[in-house]
Amino acid sequence: MPKIVDHEARRAEIAEALWRVVRRDGIGGASVRTVAAEAGWSPGAVRYYFPDQEGLLNFAMDLVSRRVRERIGAIEAIEATGTLTEIALRYLEEVIPLDSEREAEFETWLSFIAQALTETGAGGLRDHLGPVQDGLLELCQSLITALSDGNTLRAGLDLQLEAERLHALVDGLALHVAVQPGRTTPARVHQILIAHLETLQP
Amino acid sequence: MPKIVDHEARRAEIAEALWRVVRRDGIGGASVRTVAAEAGWSPGAVRYYFPDQEGLLNFAMDLVSRRVRERIGAIEAIEATGTLTEIALRYLEEVIPLDSEREAEFETWLSFIAQALTETGAGGLRDHLGPVQDGLLELCQSLITALSDGNTLRAGLDLQLEAERLHALVDGLALHVAVQPGRTTPARVHQILIAHLETLQP
Repeated sequence: MPKIVDHEARRAEIAEALWRVVRRDGIGGASVRTVAAEAGWSPGAVRYYFPDQEGLLNFAMDLVSRRVRERIGAIEAIEATGTLTEIALRYLEEVIPLDSEREAEFETWLSFIAQALTETGAGGLRDHLGPVQDGLLELCQSLITALSDGNTLRAGLDLQLEAERLHALVDGLALHVAVQPGRTTPARVHQILIAHLETLQP
Repeated sequence: MPKIVDHEARRAEIAEALWRVVRRDGIGGASVRTVAAEAGWSPGAVRYYFPDQEGLLNFAMDLVSRRVRERIGAIEAIEATGTLTEIALRYLEEVIPLDSEREAEFETWLSFIAQALTETGAGGLRDHLGPVQDGLLELCQSLITALSDGNTLRAGLDLQLEAERLHALVDGLALHVAVQPGRTTPARVHQILIAHLETLQP
Protein backbone atom coordinates (compact mmCIF):
# COMPACT_ATOMS: atom_id res chain seq x y z
CA MET A 1 0.00 0.00 0.00
CA PRO A 2 1.48 3.42 -0.85
CA LYS A 3 2.42 5.69 1.99
CA ILE A 4 -0.26 8.33 2.40
CA VAL A 5 1.13 11.81 3.04
CA ASP A 6 -1.07 14.43 4.63
CA HIS A 7 0.15 17.41 2.61
CA GLU A 8 -1.85 19.92 4.64
CA ALA A 9 -0.30 18.68 7.87
CA ARG A 10 3.17 18.84 6.34
CA ARG A 11 2.64 22.40 5.14
CA ALA A 12 1.44 23.31 8.63
CA GLU A 13 4.61 21.74 10.06
CA ILE A 14 6.73 23.84 7.68
CA ALA A 15 4.69 26.91 8.65
CA GLU A 16 5.51 26.37 12.32
CA ALA A 17 9.21 25.85 11.62
CA LEU A 18 9.26 28.91 9.35
CA TRP A 19 7.62 31.01 12.02
CA ARG A 20 10.14 29.91 14.67
CA VAL A 21 13.02 30.84 12.33
CA VAL A 22 11.47 34.24 11.54
CA ARG A 23 10.94 35.08 15.21
CA ARG A 24 14.49 34.06 16.09
CA ASP A 25 16.50 35.33 13.10
CA GLY A 26 14.19 37.63 11.21
CA ILE A 27 12.83 36.99 7.75
CA GLY A 28 16.36 37.36 6.35
CA GLY A 29 17.29 34.14 8.15
CA ALA A 30 14.51 32.12 6.53
CA SER A 31 15.72 29.99 3.64
CA VAL A 32 14.78 26.53 2.40
CA ARG A 33 17.88 25.23 4.20
CA THR A 34 17.31 26.91 7.59
CA VAL A 35 13.61 26.06 7.66
CA ALA A 36 14.40 22.43 6.77
CA ALA A 37 16.96 22.27 9.59
CA GLU A 38 14.44 23.75 12.04
CA ALA A 39 11.76 21.24 11.02
CA GLY A 40 14.22 18.34 11.11
CA TRP A 41 13.63 17.66 7.41
CA SER A 42 15.95 17.45 4.42
CA PRO A 43 16.11 20.59 2.24
CA GLY A 44 14.71 18.45 -0.60
CA ALA A 45 11.59 17.66 1.41
CA VAL A 46 10.93 21.37 2.02
CA ARG A 47 11.65 22.12 -1.65
CA TYR A 48 8.90 19.70 -2.63
CA TYR A 49 6.45 22.24 -1.17
CA PHE A 50 8.42 25.46 -1.69
CA PRO A 51 10.94 25.23 -4.52
CA ASP A 52 12.69 28.49 -3.68
CA GLN A 53 12.97 31.33 -1.19
CA GLU A 54 10.35 33.38 -3.01
CA GLY A 55 7.78 30.61 -2.55
CA LEU A 56 8.74 30.42 1.10
CA LEU A 57 8.40 34.20 1.52
CA ASN A 58 4.98 34.17 -0.10
CA PHE A 59 4.00 31.40 2.28
CA ALA A 60 5.28 33.47 5.21
CA MET A 61 3.14 36.38 4.09
CA ASP A 62 0.08 34.16 3.72
CA LEU A 63 0.76 33.01 7.26
CA VAL A 64 0.88 36.60 8.50
CA SER A 65 -2.43 37.44 6.78
CA ARG A 66 -4.04 34.34 8.20
CA ARG A 67 -2.82 35.06 11.73
CA VAL A 68 -4.11 38.63 11.58
CA ARG A 69 -7.47 37.46 10.24
CA GLU A 70 -7.68 34.83 12.99
CA ARG A 71 -7.00 37.42 15.66
CA ILE A 72 -9.62 39.74 14.23
CA GLY A 73 -12.06 36.83 14.03
CA ALA A 74 -11.40 36.06 17.69
CA ILE A 75 -12.49 39.58 18.65
CA GLU A 76 -15.72 39.16 16.72
CA ALA A 77 -16.34 35.96 18.63
CA ILE A 78 -16.19 37.82 21.95
CA GLU A 79 -19.42 39.53 22.85
CA ALA A 80 -19.00 43.14 21.86
CA THR A 81 -19.29 45.30 24.96
CA GLY A 82 -18.67 49.01 25.39
CA THR A 83 -19.31 51.91 23.07
CA LEU A 84 -18.74 51.59 19.34
CA THR A 85 -15.60 53.69 19.72
CA GLU A 86 -14.26 51.35 22.41
CA ILE A 87 -14.94 48.35 20.19
CA ALA A 88 -13.22 50.04 17.23
CA LEU A 89 -10.21 50.73 19.44
CA ARG A 90 -10.00 47.09 20.43
CA TYR A 91 -9.82 46.02 16.78
CA LEU A 92 -7.25 48.63 15.83
CA GLU A 93 -4.94 47.77 18.71
CA GLU A 94 -5.07 44.15 17.61
CA VAL A 95 -3.22 44.95 14.36
CA ILE A 96 -0.48 47.11 15.91
CA PRO A 97 2.69 45.23 17.02
CA LEU A 98 2.17 45.59 20.78
CA ASP A 99 3.53 42.17 21.74
CA SER A 100 6.28 39.87 20.47
CA GLU A 101 3.94 37.79 18.28
CA ARG A 102 2.64 40.84 16.46
CA GLU A 103 6.17 42.31 16.35
CA ALA A 104 7.33 39.23 14.43
CA GLU A 105 4.38 39.56 12.05
CA PHE A 106 5.03 43.22 11.44
CA GLU A 107 8.75 42.67 10.94
CA THR A 108 7.95 39.98 8.39
CA TRP A 109 5.58 42.32 6.61
CA LEU A 110 8.19 45.12 6.49
CA SER A 111 10.92 42.79 5.23
CA PHE A 112 8.55 41.50 2.63
CA ILE A 113 7.75 45.05 1.45
CA ALA A 114 11.41 46.04 1.44
CA GLN A 115 12.31 42.97 -0.62
CA ALA A 116 9.36 43.33 -2.99
CA LEU A 117 10.10 47.01 -3.69
CA THR A 118 13.55 46.15 -5.03
CA GLU A 119 11.90 44.02 -7.73
CA THR A 120 11.12 45.65 -11.02
CA GLY A 121 8.22 44.73 -13.26
CA ALA A 122 5.16 42.63 -12.55
CA GLY A 123 5.01 39.18 -11.00
CA GLY A 124 7.00 37.99 -8.01
CA LEU A 125 6.52 39.32 -4.50
CA ARG A 126 5.27 42.73 -5.57
CA ASP A 127 1.91 41.32 -6.67
CA HIS A 128 1.32 39.96 -3.17
CA LEU A 129 1.70 43.31 -1.41
CA GLY A 130 -1.65 44.80 -2.37
CA PRO A 131 -3.88 41.92 -1.23
CA VAL A 132 -2.15 41.76 2.17
CA GLN A 133 -2.49 45.49 2.64
CA ASP A 134 -6.12 45.40 1.53
CA GLY A 135 -6.99 43.26 4.55
CA LEU A 136 -6.23 46.10 6.96
CA LEU A 137 -7.97 48.68 4.76
CA GLU A 138 -11.09 46.50 4.76
CA LEU A 139 -11.01 46.38 8.56
CA CYS A 140 -10.79 50.19 8.65
CA GLN A 141 -13.67 50.46 6.17
CA SER A 142 -15.83 48.14 8.30
CA LEU A 143 -15.09 50.14 11.45
CA ILE A 144 -15.83 53.50 9.82
CA THR A 145 -19.06 52.10 8.37
CA ALA A 146 -20.06 50.67 11.77
CA LEU A 147 -19.39 54.04 13.45
CA SER A 148 -21.42 55.79 10.75
CA ASP A 149 -24.32 53.33 11.01
CA GLY A 150 -24.26 53.78 14.79
CA ASN A 151 -24.58 57.57 14.42
CA THR A 152 -21.24 58.07 16.17
CA LEU A 153 -19.66 59.80 13.20
CA ARG A 154 -19.83 63.48 12.31
CA ALA A 155 -22.15 64.26 9.41
CA GLY A 156 -20.61 65.03 6.03
CA LEU A 157 -17.50 62.88 6.37
CA ASP A 158 -16.22 61.07 3.27
CA LEU A 159 -16.31 57.50 4.61
CA GLN A 160 -13.85 56.06 2.07
CA LEU A 161 -11.36 58.85 2.72
CA GLU A 162 -11.75 58.40 6.49
CA ALA A 163 -11.07 54.67 6.12
CA GLU A 164 -7.89 55.39 4.16
CA ARG A 165 -6.81 58.05 6.67
CA LEU A 166 -7.35 55.65 9.57
CA HIS A 167 -5.50 52.91 7.68
CA ALA A 168 -2.48 55.22 7.17
CA LEU A 169 -2.55 56.27 10.83
CA VAL A 170 -2.62 52.65 12.03
CA ASP A 171 0.24 51.58 9.73
CA GLY A 172 2.27 54.63 10.70
CA LEU A 173 1.76 53.87 14.40
CA ALA A 174 2.77 50.24 13.77
CA LEU A 175 5.98 51.47 12.14
CA HIS A 176 6.73 53.80 15.04
CA VAL A 177 6.07 51.10 17.64
CA ALA A 178 8.51 48.84 15.78
CA VAL A 179 11.21 51.49 15.43
CA GLN A 180 10.90 53.33 18.75
CA PRO A 181 9.02 51.17 21.24
CA GLY A 182 10.34 53.33 24.08
CA ARG A 183 8.53 56.39 22.73
CA THR A 184 5.54 54.95 20.92
CA THR A 185 4.39 52.78 23.84
CA PRO A 186 1.11 50.82 23.94
CA ALA A 187 -0.32 53.55 26.22
CA ARG A 188 0.66 56.25 23.72
CA VAL A 189 -0.85 54.32 20.80
CA HIS A 190 -4.06 54.07 22.84
CA GLN A 191 -4.12 57.85 23.46
CA ILE A 192 -3.45 58.70 19.82
CA LEU A 193 -6.15 56.33 18.53
CA ILE A 194 -8.69 57.68 21.04
CA ALA A 195 -7.84 61.26 20.04
CA HIS A 196 -8.29 60.29 16.39
CA LEU A 197 -11.63 58.55 16.89
CA GLU A 198 -12.87 61.49 18.99
CA THR A 199 -12.26 63.90 16.11
CA LEU A 200 -14.66 61.76 14.04
CA GLN A 201 -17.48 62.00 16.56
CA PRO A 202 -20.47 64.31 16.05
CA MET B 1 55.88 64.68 -2.09
CA PRO B 2 53.14 62.43 -0.68
CA LYS B 3 49.94 62.14 -2.67
CA ILE B 4 47.26 64.26 -1.05
CA VAL B 5 43.89 62.57 -0.91
CA ASP B 6 40.75 64.62 -0.49
CA HIS B 7 38.87 62.24 1.80
CA GLU B 8 35.67 64.27 1.73
CA ALA B 9 35.60 64.20 -2.07
CA ARG B 10 36.23 60.46 -2.08
CA ARG B 11 33.41 59.84 0.41
CA ALA B 12 31.13 61.94 -1.78
CA GLU B 13 32.16 59.83 -4.77
CA ILE B 14 31.29 56.65 -2.86
CA ALA B 15 27.99 58.24 -1.83
CA GLU B 16 27.07 58.87 -5.46
CA ALA B 17 28.02 55.34 -6.51
CA LEU B 18 26.12 53.89 -3.53
CA TRP B 19 23.03 55.88 -4.43
CA ARG B 20 23.13 54.69 -8.07
CA VAL B 21 23.37 51.07 -6.88
CA VAL B 22 20.48 51.52 -4.42
CA ARG B 23 18.23 53.10 -7.04
CA ARG B 24 19.04 50.34 -9.55
CA ASP B 25 19.16 47.22 -7.35
CA GLY B 26 17.66 48.23 -4.02
CA ILE B 27 19.56 48.44 -0.77
CA GLY B 28 19.97 44.65 -0.84
CA GLY B 29 22.24 45.06 -3.86
CA ALA B 30 24.58 47.47 -2.08
CA SER B 31 27.75 45.80 -0.83
CA VAL B 32 31.35 46.94 -0.59
CA ARG B 33 32.00 44.97 -3.80
CA THR B 34 29.09 46.31 -5.89
CA VAL B 35 29.65 49.91 -4.78
CA ALA B 36 33.37 49.60 -5.58
CA ALA B 37 32.53 48.26 -9.06
CA GLU B 38 30.07 51.11 -9.63
CA ALA B 39 32.62 53.72 -8.58
CA GLY B 40 35.38 52.07 -10.62
CA TRP B 41 37.43 51.48 -7.48
CA SER B 42 38.94 48.38 -5.90
CA PRO B 43 36.96 46.84 -3.03
CA GLY B 44 39.96 47.57 -0.81
CA ALA B 45 39.72 51.30 -1.57
CA VAL B 46 36.05 51.36 -0.53
CA ARG B 47 36.82 49.31 2.56
CA TYR B 48 39.31 51.98 3.65
CA TYR B 49 36.26 54.22 4.24
CA PHE B 50 33.61 51.59 5.01
CA PRO B 51 35.09 48.35 6.37
CA ASP B 52 31.83 46.38 6.08
CA GLN B 53 28.26 46.41 4.82
CA GLU B 54 26.97 47.78 8.12
CA GLY B 55 29.19 50.84 7.77
CA LEU B 56 27.97 51.27 4.22
CA LEU B 57 24.32 50.96 5.28
CA ASN B 58 24.79 53.54 8.01
CA PHE B 59 26.34 55.82 5.43
CA ALA B 60 23.34 55.24 3.12
CA MET B 61 20.99 56.22 5.95
CA ASP B 62 23.00 59.36 6.69
CA LEU B 63 22.69 60.18 3.01
CA VAL B 64 18.91 59.75 3.14
CA SER B 65 18.63 62.02 6.20
CA ARG B 66 20.81 64.62 4.56
CA ARG B 67 18.80 64.57 1.32
CA VAL B 68 15.52 64.95 3.21
CA ARG B 69 16.93 67.82 5.29
CA GLU B 70 18.22 69.52 2.14
CA ARG B 71 14.82 69.27 0.46
CA ILE B 72 13.10 70.69 3.54
CA GLY B 73 15.72 73.46 3.69
CA ALA B 74 14.99 74.28 0.04
CA ILE B 75 11.30 74.88 0.88
CA GLU B 76 12.28 77.24 3.68
CA ALA B 77 14.40 79.16 1.20
CA ILE B 78 11.37 79.76 -1.03
CA GLU B 79 9.25 82.66 0.10
CA ALA B 80 6.34 81.18 2.01
CA THR B 81 3.12 82.08 0.24
CA GLY B 82 -0.42 80.89 0.90
CA THR B 83 -2.19 80.05 4.13
CA LEU B 84 -0.37 78.31 6.96
CA THR B 85 -2.26 75.13 6.10
CA GLU B 86 -1.09 75.32 2.47
CA ILE B 87 2.49 75.80 3.61
CA ALA B 88 2.22 72.86 6.01
CA LEU B 89 0.89 70.71 3.16
CA ARG B 90 3.84 71.63 0.98
CA TYR B 91 6.28 70.44 3.64
CA LEU B 92 4.42 67.21 4.32
CA GLU B 93 4.21 66.27 0.65
CA GLU B 94 7.95 66.77 0.39
CA VAL B 95 8.63 63.80 2.70
CA ILE B 96 6.22 61.37 1.01
CA PRO B 97 7.69 59.26 -1.84
CA LEU B 98 5.82 60.94 -4.71
CA ASP B 99 8.67 60.74 -7.25
CA SER B 100 11.44 58.27 -8.05
CA GLU B 101 14.09 60.10 -5.97
CA ARG B 102 11.92 60.00 -2.86
CA GLU B 103 10.85 56.43 -3.65
CA ALA B 104 14.49 55.36 -3.57
CA GLU B 105 14.98 57.17 -0.26
CA PHE B 106 11.91 55.60 1.29
CA GLU B 107 12.81 52.13 0.03
CA THR B 108 16.26 52.55 1.58
CA TRP B 109 14.69 53.61 4.84
CA LEU B 110 12.33 50.61 4.88
CA SER B 111 15.11 48.14 4.05
CA PHE B 112 17.20 49.70 6.77
CA ILE B 113 14.39 49.28 9.31
CA ALA B 114 13.69 45.71 8.19
CA GLN B 115 17.36 44.81 8.52
CA ALA B 116 17.81 46.63 11.83
CA LEU B 117 14.78 44.93 13.41
CA THR B 118 16.30 41.49 12.87
CA GLU B 119 19.23 42.51 15.09
CA THR B 120 19.00 41.76 18.77
CA GLY B 121 20.57 43.84 21.52
CA ALA B 122 22.01 47.32 21.41
CA GLY B 123 24.55 48.71 18.96
CA GLY B 124 24.56 48.19 15.23
CA LEU B 125 21.92 49.55 12.89
CA ARG B 126 19.16 49.63 15.47
CA ASP B 127 20.68 52.62 17.25
CA HIS B 128 20.48 54.64 14.04
CA LEU B 129 16.74 54.21 13.55
CA GLY B 130 15.57 56.64 16.22
CA PRO B 131 17.60 59.65 15.14
CA VAL B 132 16.50 59.30 11.51
CA GLN B 133 12.87 58.98 12.53
CA ASP B 134 13.19 61.95 14.90
CA GLY B 135 13.87 64.23 11.93
CA LEU B 136 10.35 63.77 10.57
CA LEU B 137 8.77 64.05 14.02
CA GLU B 138 10.57 67.36 14.52
CA LEU B 139 9.17 68.62 11.22
CA CYS B 140 5.65 67.65 12.38
CA GLN B 141 6.23 69.37 15.72
CA SER B 142 7.38 72.57 13.97
CA LEU B 143 4.32 72.55 11.69
CA ILE B 144 1.86 71.97 14.53
CA THR B 145 3.54 74.71 16.56
CA ALA B 146 3.40 77.09 13.59
CA LEU B 147 -0.30 76.34 13.06
CA SER B 148 -0.95 76.88 16.76
CA ASP B 149 1.01 80.15 16.85
CA GLY B 150 -0.90 81.32 13.77
CA ASN B 151 -4.24 80.68 15.52
CA THR B 152 -5.20 78.13 12.87
CA LEU B 153 -5.49 75.29 15.37
CA ARG B 154 -8.52 74.35 17.47
CA ALA B 155 -8.19 75.31 21.13
CA GLY B 156 -7.48 72.60 23.65
CA LEU B 157 -5.44 70.30 21.39
CA ASP B 158 -2.47 68.45 22.87
CA LEU B 159 0.26 69.75 20.54
CA GLN B 160 2.74 66.95 21.22
CA LEU B 161 0.09 64.29 20.63
CA GLU B 162 -1.03 66.03 17.43
CA ALA B 163 2.57 66.10 16.18
CA GLU B 164 2.88 62.34 16.83
CA ARG B 165 -0.48 61.65 15.18
CA LEU B 166 0.51 63.67 12.10
CA HIS B 167 3.88 61.88 12.03
CA ALA B 168 2.17 58.47 12.05
CA LEU B 169 -0.27 59.57 9.32
CA VAL B 170 2.56 60.81 7.08
CA ASP B 171 4.64 57.64 7.53
CA GLY B 172 1.58 55.46 6.93
CA LEU B 173 0.77 57.37 3.73
CA ALA B 174 4.39 57.00 2.62
CA LEU B 175 4.11 53.24 3.15
CA HIS B 176 0.87 53.07 1.19
CA VAL B 177 2.26 55.12 -1.69
CA ALA B 178 5.22 52.73 -1.87
CA VAL B 179 3.09 49.58 -1.72
CA GLN B 180 0.06 50.64 -3.79
CA PRO B 181 0.94 53.68 -5.90
CA GLY B 182 -2.10 52.99 -8.08
CA ARG B 183 -4.48 53.51 -5.17
CA THR B 184 -2.60 55.94 -2.92
CA THR B 185 -1.86 58.46 -5.69
CA PRO B 186 -0.31 61.91 -5.14
CA ALA B 187 -3.80 63.43 -5.57
CA ARG B 188 -5.21 61.09 -2.91
CA VAL B 189 -2.38 61.88 -0.48
CA HIS B 190 -3.15 65.56 -1.02
CA GLN B 191 -6.86 65.05 -0.22
CA ILE B 192 -6.14 63.00 2.90
CA LEU B 193 -3.62 65.50 4.24
CA ILE B 194 -6.02 68.41 3.60
CA ALA B 195 -8.83 66.54 5.36
CA HIS B 196 -6.52 65.89 8.30
CA LEU B 197 -5.34 69.49 8.61
CA GLU B 198 -8.93 70.73 8.33
CA THR B 199 -9.95 68.66 11.37
CA LEU B 200 -7.31 70.59 13.34
CA GLN B 201 -8.71 74.00 12.41
CA PRO B 202 -10.81 76.06 14.84
